[in-house]
Parts: sequence; C-alpha cells; structure tokens
Amino acid sequence: MAGKVNQDLLNERAKCNFDVEELTNLLDDGAEQTKKRRTLEQNVLSIKGLLDDVPEEYLSHKEKYENGLRKTLLFCKALQTYDKESANKSFQENIRLNFRNSLWSAVTKDTSPLLLHLEMFMISILEQGTEEQSKYWGKKAANFEIIGTYAQTELGHGTFIRGLETRATYDVDTEEFVLHSPTITAYKWWPGGMGHTANHCVVMAQLYIKGKNYGLQPFMVQIRDLETHMPLPGVKVGEIGPKLGFNTVNNGFLGFDNVRIPREWMLMKNAQVLKDGTYKASPNSKLAYGAMVYVRVVIINSVFKYLSRAVTIAVRYSAVRRQSQPKPNAPEPQIMDYVTQQHKLLIAISTSHAYHFTVRWLWDLYIKTNKELKRGEFKNLPELHILACSMKVISSADCTALIEKCRLACGGHGYMLSSSLPLLYGVSTATVTYEGENTVLLLQVARSLVKTWEQISKGHITVSPSVVYLCNRTPVPKWDNSLEGILQSFKRVAKGKVSTSVSSLDQYRKSGLSPEDAWNKASVQLIAAAEAHARVIVLSVYKDELERKSSTLSYPLGTVLLQLLELYYIYWTLEKTGDLLLHTRLSEKDVRDLQYRYEELLEKIRPNAVGLVDAFDYRDEILSSTLGAYDGRAYERLMEEALKSPLNAEPVNESFEKYLKPFMRGKL
Amino acid sequence: MAGKVNQDLLNERAKCNFDVEELTNLLDDGAEQTKKRRTLEQNVLSIKGLLDDVPEEYLSHKEKYENGLRKTLLFCKALQTYDKESANKSFQENIRLNFRNSLWSAVTKDTSPLLLHLEMFMISILEQGTEEQSKYWGKKAANFEIIGTYAQTELGHGTFIRGLETRATYDVDTEEFVLHSPTITAYKWWPGGMGHTANHCVVMAQLYIKGKNYGLQPFMVQIRDLETHMPLPGVKVGEIGPKLGFNTVNNGFLGFDNVRIPREWMLMKNAQVLKDGTYKASPNSKLAYGAMVYVRVVIINSVFKYLSRAVTIAVRYSAVRRQSQPKPNAPEPQIMDYVTQQHKLLIAISTSHAYHFTVRWLWDLYIKTNKELKRGEFKNLPELHILACSMKVISSADCTALIEKCRLACGGHGYMLSSSLPLLYGVSTATVTYEGENTVLLLQVARSLVKTWEQISKGHITVSPSVVYLCNRTPVPKWDNSLEGILQSFKRVAKGKVSTSVSSLDQYRKSGLSPEDAWNKASVQLIAAAEAHARVIVLSVYKDELERKSSTLSYPLGTVLLQLLELYYIYWTLEKTGDLLLHTRLSEKDVRDLQYRYEELLEKIRPNAVGLVDAFDYRDEILSSTLGAYDGRAYERLMEEALKSPLNAEPVNESFEKYLKPFMRGKL
Repeated sequence: MAGKVNQDLLNERAKCNFDVEELTNLLDDGAEQTKKRRTLEQNVLSIKGLLDDVPEEYLSHKEKYENGLRKTLLFCKALQTYDKESANKSFQENIRLNFRNSLWSAVTKDTSPLLLHLEMFMISILEQGTEEQSKYWGKKAANFEIIGTYAQTELGHGTFIRGLETRATYDVDTEEFVLHSPTITAYKWWPGGMGHTANHCVVMAQLYIKGKNYGLQPFMVQIRDLETHMPLPGVKVGEIGPKLGFNTVNNGFLGFDNVRIPREWMLMKNAQVLKDGTYKASPNSKLAYGAMVYVRVVIINSVFKYLSRAVTIAVRYSAVRRQSQPKPNAPEPQIMDYVTQQHKLLIAISTSHAYHFTVRWLWDLYIKTNKELKRGEFKNLPELHILACSMKVISSADCTALIEKCRLACGGHGYMLSSSLPLLYGVSTATVTYEGENTVLLLQVARSLVKTWEQISKGHITVSPSVVYLCNRTPVPKWDNSLEGILQSFKRVAKGKVSTSVSSLDQYRKSGLSPEDAWNKASVQLIAAAEAHARVIVLSVYKDELERKSSTLSYPLGTVLLQLLELYYIYWTLEKTGDLLLHTRLSEKDVRDLQYRYEELLEKIRPNAVGLVDAFDYRDEILSSTLGAYDGRAYERLMEEALKSPLNAEPVNESFEKYLKPFMRGKL
Repeated sequence: MAGKVNQDLLNERAKCNFDVEELTNLLDDGAEQTKKRRTLEQNVLSIKGLLDDVPEEYLSHKEKYENGLRKTLLFCKALQTYDKESANKSFQENIRLNFRNSLWSAVTKDTSPLLLHLEMFMISILEQGTEEQSKYWGKKAANFEIIGTYAQTELGHGTFIRGLETRATYDVDTEEFVLHSPTITAYKWWPGGMGHTANHCVVMAQLYIKGKNYGLQPFMVQIRDLETHMPLPGVKVGEIGPKLGFNTVNNGFLGFDNVRIPREWMLMKNAQVLKDGTYKASPNSKLAYGAMVYVRVVIINSVFKYLSRAVTIAVRYSAVRRQSQPKPNAPEPQIMDYVTQQHKLLIAISTSHAYHFTVRWLWDLYIKTNKELKRGEFKNLPELHILACSMKVISSADCTALIEKCRLACGGHGYMLSSSLPLLYGVSTATVTYEGENTVLLLQVARSLVKTWEQISKGHITVSPSVVYLCNRTPVPKWDNSLEGILQSFKRVAKGKVSTSVSSLDQYRKSGLSPEDAWNKASVQLIAAAEAHARVIVLSVYKDELERKSSTLSYPLGTVLLQLLELYYIYWTLEKTGDLLLHTRLSEKDVRDLQYRYEELLEKIRPNAVGLVDAFDYRDEILSSTLGAYDGRAYERLMEEALKSPLNAEPVNESFEKYLKPFMRGKL
C-alpha cells in the first residue's frame, strides 16, 4: 500500500505559499495541542483489530452492528489506556479539548452504538440528576458498568414534545412510577444503542400524580437484565431498521407495558416528587436550555468537520484527476484547474473556516452564559438559545449542501462508497433534522426576531447584541465593496426581511386571520428572514474572529486566510443578489465588479488549495477514502478496494448455475 | 396488513375537487392505456417470489446481488408472459409506450443487473451494428441467449472520451483485433452487469491499424464462457464495490490482456475495417448523436418519475402526520397544513408535471429529427442535441433537489430506508453525473449559446426556434405578472446572462488570455447563462403543452393544473429575483405581490394535494414505502418493517456474551 506520492500532489505541495503546519497549529489552538492529538491518533490507531480488513459496506445489516460494537468497545478501552488527560478534566473541558478529535470516525465511521451513552445519557445524568443521582449513575456510566441511552422522540411525536404520550404514573402506595406506552405512536423511536446495546435508559415521560399531568420529566429505567441482557418484563425493545446513515448506531424502539421503577429513579434535580405524591416544581425550568445549547454546539462542530473531510477528499482528487483537452496538443489539465471546479470546492474550504471560528465563539459564549445560569442570572440565555438555533440551522444546511457538492465534483467516483463521500453526506444530512428540525428552529428564530422588532417599534431599544442592527434607522448608504460594507449590507437585508414579514403578518391579521393563521400564512417569509439573520451572524463572527487572530499569523498565512474570508463574503453576495438589490443600493455594475473579484480570488487561492486541505490534518485512517488519501493514489486504491469485495473472491458467482444459466436456456 | 385507510387520508380524498381518474388518464395518454398498465401491473405483481419478504436492505452486498439477479430473471420471464404487446413493437415504440411503466421499481428498486443489457447493449447493437450484425446479436440478446453490457468509461477517463486508453489493434495476418488495456487507468469501470452477470460486452476502444489511430470504435467482445461463465483468457473482470445507489446492478470493471476477436466483431454500421486493414470512415459521424439524445430522454423520464414517487410519499405522510399545537386546545394539525410544508412539497408536484410534458415534447422532437436523419437531413440535430443536454441537466438537478426536500420534509422518518426516500435520492442523484456530467453539459450548451450570440451580432438572424429570443432587440417592457409576461422576462434574463458572459469573455481575451483560458475564466458565468436558457425551455414547454391540452380537460381538472403551472412560474420568479431585478423591470412591489399570490396559490392547491399525488397512480408495491402507502398506516408499517430486521429475530444478540458483557466487567 505504501507507494510513492502522486506527482501532481507533490507539485501542488511544492507550490503552496504558506506554512501548512502553522495553519494546522492555528486550527488546533497551538502546536502543543497538535502534537498531543497526533500522538493520541498514532497510539490508538496502532491497535490491532480496530480497523476493518473487509470494508463494513460489504456486511449485512446485522454484521455491521456486531462488528461496530466490537470495534467500539476496543476503542473505548484504547482511550482508557492512551487518553489519560481526559480522565482528570470535566465533561465540558473535554468537549472543548476534543473539538479537533475525529478519531471515532476512523473506527466507526457510520457512528457507534455507544454514541448516546457517551453523550446524551451522561449529560442527562449530570444535568438532570440530583447530586447523589449524578454521582451514583455517573460513576457506573463512566465505568461502563451500565450502558445507557436517552429516549425522548416517539414514533408519532418529535418536535412537539408536549405531545409525547409515554406516561409515568406515580403509585403512592408502592412509591413507584408506572411507565406505560398507551398506543403504538407512544413507542420511543430512534435512540442510539437502544436496539440491542443499552441496558439503561433515561426516558422522558408525562408525569401523572393522582390523575393530574405535571408535564415531561426524566426517568432512569433499567430495560435489560445486566446478567443475561434479556429485556425486563414489560419492556418491548428492538432496533428500528436500516437508515440513510448511522447504521452501526443501533437505533431502537422502546415500549412499556406498565413497567415499575422506584420513586428515586426519577431524575430530580429540577422537579421532585415526594413520597406522598407531592410535586415540587423546578426552581427554574430554563436550566434545561443549557443542555440543548450544548448539543447544538456539538452538532455544529461535527458537521463542519464532515465538510472539511469532504473537501480534503475532493480537492486532493481534483489535483490528481485529469480530464479533457481544452488546448490542442496540451496534456489533459488537472480538474482543479477548471474554474467551475474551483467554484464548487474553494467555498467549502472557506465555509469550514467560517464554522471553525463560529463554533469556538459560540462555545465560549455558552460557557460564559452557563456560569451566569449557575449564579441565577438568566438574562443572556434567550440570546444564546437563538444564536445556537440559528447556527445549528445554517451550519447543518450549508455544510450538508457543500458536502454533496464535493461529492458531485468528484464525478462518478464520488458515488463509490469507498470515496467516503456518500457516508459523509449520510451522517451530515441527519443534522438538518435532529435536535431541532431546521424549519422548526427557523420559526423559533423568526418568532424572536419579530418580538424584538415589535419591541423596537414600541421604543424599547435595549436589545441583545446580535440583533442591534434591527435598530438602525440611518438611510441606506452607497454600496461599499469592503468586507465591513458587505456585512452592513447583509444586516440591511436581514432587517428588510424582518420588516417585510412583519408587514405581511399585519396584513394577514387585518384581513381577518387569527394570529396563528396569519403567522402560518407568512411563515415562508419568516423563515427567509431568520435565515438572513443567521447569515449575518456567521459573516460577522467569521470576520471578527479571524481579524482578532490576524496579528498572531505570519504574513503568508494571514494573506491566504483573508482571501478565504473575502471569498466567503463575495460568494454569498453573489448568491443573494436578489435580496441585496431589494434592500441595499447594490447596482448592476457592482454585481459585475464582484463577479470579477470572485474570479480573481479563485485564481489566487487555487495554488494553495491542496495546502489548505492538508492543513486540516486528517490521517488517512480518518478520511478512509480511496480518492482522498495523502498519497493521491486514487485509481490504485479504487481497484484495491474493489478487489476486497466478497463477490470478487470467486470468479463465478453461484447464481450463474442456479438462475442465469437455466434462464439463458429458457429453462428457469 | 390489509387494514382500513387512515381517517385523515379519507378526509383528504373526500375534499379533492377534481376527478383523480381523469388526471391519471391524462398522464397515461388515455383511459385505455391506464387500463393496460394496471392489468400488466396486476398480472406481474401477483407472481410469487418477485417481491421480498425480508427487505433487501438487511442483506449483505453479495446477497443483494444474488437476490437481485434472481428476481430480475423471474421478472423478465413474467414480462414475456404478460407483455405480449411489446413483442410486436419497435424498440422506440416501446420506449414511448412504457413512459409510465415503473414496474421494474417494484422488483429491483435499486435497479437491475440486466439494466445495461436491456438498454445500452441492445441499442448499441441496433445503432452501431450492420444490418447483419444487428440481426444476429439482436436476436440472441432479445432471447437472452447472450447477456451483454456496454463499456465506455474507464477508471481514469469519463467525460473526455477521446482520452480513453483501451486499444483495439488490427492484426492483418490473422484478421483479428487485439484488445488491450495498457494501464490501470485504462480499465473499463462502471458498466452495469459487468461484474458477474454479462458474458458479452460492447467495448469502445481506440482503433489502431498499422500504427495509426482511427479514433473510438465499438467492438463486440465475449468476456465469459457461455457454459461455465468463467472469464475468458486475458479478460480481467469483477465488480467495483458498493455505491450510494445501484447496489443490485452489479457494476463492474474490465481489463484486457491482448484479447483477440475476429474482424467481423467490430460493429461496422458507421465505420469499417476491411480484411486488408483498409479503414473506411463513417458516412456521417453525427448519427451517433441520436443514441445520446435517446438516452437522455430516458433519463429525464426516469428522474421526474422518481420525483413523483417521492412527493406521493411525502404528501400522504404529511396528511397523516400531526404535530404541534399552534392554537391552544385545538388538536395537533396535519403537517400538510403548515405553509412551510406546502412550500416544500407543492412545487414538487408542479415540477413532476413540468417534466411530464417536457419529456413527451422532447421525445416527439427526437422521433421527428430521427426520421430526418435517416433521410440524410441534419439541420435540426444540433438544436435537438442542445435541447436534450439542457433538459437532462435541469431535470436531474431539479428533481434530485426536490426529492431530497421531500425526504427532509418527512423529518426523521424520511431518513429510514423503509420510507424509500433515501433510495430515490440515491438513484436520482446519479443522473446528475452519468451520461454527460451536468457541468460539462452546461458548458456545451453555453458554447452553443455564445456561438449563436456571435452569429446574431454578425447579422445572422436565422437561428433555431429555441434561441430566437436572443434576437429580441425591443426595449424591456414594464413588468407583467401574467404567465406570458413572466416567460418573456425569463427570456430577458437568459439573454442578459448570455450577453454579460460574452462581455466577460471579450474582456478576458482583451486582457491577454488565450481563448481557452478566457473561456475557463468566464465559465462560472457561462454555466449560469446555460442554466437560465434551460429554465426558459421548461417554462415555455410546460405552458405550451398544458395549454394545448386544456380544451380536452374538465373545468375542475383544468383549473387545478393551471394553478400548478402558475405556482411553478411564480416559484421560479421568486427564486430568481436577483436575475430578474437585473435584467427586467421587476420592482420591489412586484416581488411583494408575487409573494402574496404564491401564498394564495399554496392555499388553493392544498386541498387537492392528496388527490394530485393519488393521480400519479403508483401501486404500493412500486412505492415500497412505509410512509407513503395508499392506506396511510405509516406508523404501523414502520413498526412492521422494523420487526422484519434479522437483528430483532432474537432478543439478545450474540455480541452481548462475546463482547459487551466482558467489557462491562472490565474483562475484554
């Protein structure tokens, strides 16, 4: 396998005009972190049995699970051995420290049956359990003495959590909760690891005491026997079947037929049920928002990393692939030299950088706000919540679309699973739907924008920092091609769209519609306004954060990072000319100038394309791509992978004698 | 399984205000055709063993192939029994007759290992063989005495067919061609059925006679023994491995180590090699364009049918799914009642209709032009070629994007393979890449537009009908909201974009770039111009063809079809405001009016949504979707399908004792 590096890639690396290692260190938050990450990768990936000999894609659905579980456990053990640092740090510190860690992807690329154990189960225990409960179950979970998952969504209920049907009815006599699924639509559906892996589960259920509903509460439920792994009496559990992605994650369903748990198994940090059935409400129900924000930050961080992997693959392949002959007698050019290809791929690099900076900024805000929450200060929570919603929507939508663009930019070979591009699409598109479906979140963002707008029109002008631009009453200035000018113009667009949709809302109301129906009627416009707001945030944070860093960068690196930033700005200006023509003083000539500048930037960035993706520093095991490996042996690897197909192990498949031959002779 | 129909769907069907059967008959080109199609479906789908008990998705890659081949052969037999009509018709007549036939999808939904045999292999024999060759191999292929495929694309070469490396060198002494793959990149890659199914193959190879290259020619090559199915000496053949879709199609690779075939096995309709090695050129090389157009029509027809299946699923599910509670104390609404959902789905119905009409129009043009070709008239061929390119690009791009929108509109459940939506995306997205990658085709369209533009500026005004609008020199009129007004505006946009990109080309040339480099530099703009041209064609044909039919329609059906047409027009106007603001006299107020009209149309079409998708008349076996079945038992079917998972056959998977238990006890 260890052949020499493709000559085209060698040439690309030779002409790169910035220090790739400097960029890697920047992305890692320092050279020290780069070193630690690489050491961990090296140690863990040397373990035998952790990587597949025969690619997972050849296995049956059942085998995929079994193999996935085996590797996951081996991997958890490996981390216990090699990742001593994490053990001494808090959950949150580890999240930040591991922002750049993609090791999981080398082992279970379609994600792991312990994913929910390690994220949602642990976090629920920590955030929703009393101190005692957190300690008790937290320790067991951390030591893998119990394996858990988190069950909220039901077969018939997702977004609207008040509609969940699973019940937990308190029985005062026995001091137990009775968990029950009254209908088929009440079955829990989706939890990762639920199928055949978890033996415990945090279940969100409607609390009933003496016939009265006290809303959704979290309950710890044991679902399988720890010795035999058999489902406990009254527990109906299994896996939900194959999906577009996450096929090694063992998503499951769960139904209860009057399953009893002790009163103490309700997670009671926020609300409590006393022995006699007295319900004590949560001191502050807003605390739960913290966990939602955390999950969304994790999503943003994962989805833009998927994108950076996809663009690494596509750019390297585009440097290796040669095609057509625009100039007679000249050799076929590298497809990376086609401006249409640069147009598809370079924006994906910019976008990866945009979210790299945005997610760190958002995380810092989350940590800061979390500290405030713990002091009982809630004033910044709504702003954080709306920012996290906006960023989750726009990052998942942008990155998923660009991953698909990267795949298509690799032509037919991008359709091969061995390229890893279809898989990256599968896992990334899921982020559009889960943890707050994008349309639903946009409507939440819109609701907040409309509220702010109405407050401003009533004269309240103390608004959150991210929406201050809605107060701007200065006349629209002349178009200004600078980054700051473009940013201000996007703020005008967002403001204009909020204003227009509020007018539409008013008009629909005046026509006699109820407020709800008017809202519904205007919702296409409202969503567009929320999207425009989200775009303002990314544009603004990407610029601010890069400018903040720029003094620490060498001149060559600073230059190329600024080019990427400008590319991002102009790309979106050209994508949104309709909005800008309506809401700013952009002219036809400006559009033409920006188009030329865009084409100029593509040309400037092109020579550094391979260097820029090399700097993401994904090991071949993590990329797991025939097209994107560091050595650029794309064709050789495609063939090597194909030869691993079990179908290719024998020259004639048994179906010939069984079906095809009789058929050809008219005897089937 | 045969339960009652979901009450929400019953209500939807009751409130539909047009005759669903009338629309079905219209789509089928007459009630008689509807009847025939249904009878064939009923007969074939009653055959035992044709449908899977355990869904294909649970099988391993190898098992999928074996099962797929078994079902394919059974299906071919069934057609021989029940589809007597086809036997008496020509290849082309059958294509048109079967435009509405989706029976294959019920049997091999991820397509069949005989796909290439039935399409490309047969067509190559007919179009490229001499009369004698056509008769000889055509009969064997039709009777399945031989199983073939068509091999053009190579591991290192796709779009640029002149770059293909496979050689066929004529040996005068033995009167044979020697087929050889000089490098790994010369291996044929992709042909369906090549892996383990085909025993013959039409191979495109560079013809060499006495050291001189005579370009690409087609050769019939036997690759496997008919008795043992073993690859013949010198033939290296196998499958290429798993892909995003087409996993039952057995795509393969093929390499030659000096394989000899008789001279008579070159397909010699167009060019000939005489015994003594004399090369006789094709009388007209343009004949080959005919087959390309044919294939593209077939693609357009398949991809919009995938879309109509996707929207059938999504609309029915949206009628069944209820979510949220915008009004206190009211029941959760059907998600179809959310305007954001209507915005996602109704355009997909319009788009299906748009391509339904367009593909038939294009087919008629193809038949007409084909007749001319046979008479030696070539003047309409370039126009047909450019139209087919434009339509292939825009239909594959639009339909694929909308299928994905349909999937996402179904939330988490759309991510389940049992919904069939991921599969529909997998097969449809491939159409963006194959048979002319979209970006490459758009550049071809652009080249033709620029050429026409330059001819017009030189005073030639006899241009093809589809580009007459480029000659329009009247001043831009006031904005006009009528369909005709919008169509004229889109023509202004396309013209404006052609004009702007030609200016850019000139400017780049003047700056000192070579024509090729200037072309490359302006290619992002050129592609946008080509897309705008393609949009004009669809808008115009959809409108013309529907208006042509309208006198035959009942008033209620005519009304709803016109609403869909108007929706399509306004949807694209709102999508393209940037272009329209630049190139027409569209104003901010017009945009606002159009937005209201759009919201009004959504409301008007909403009550007929289920009726409109019912009219596509897909049997449940063809839809093969838990979410989209006619009875709307979405939740029950999701659970029933999940229970078929082999993982669910046993309560405890063996991995527990093997891996998980030891791990939990720290003993792995």
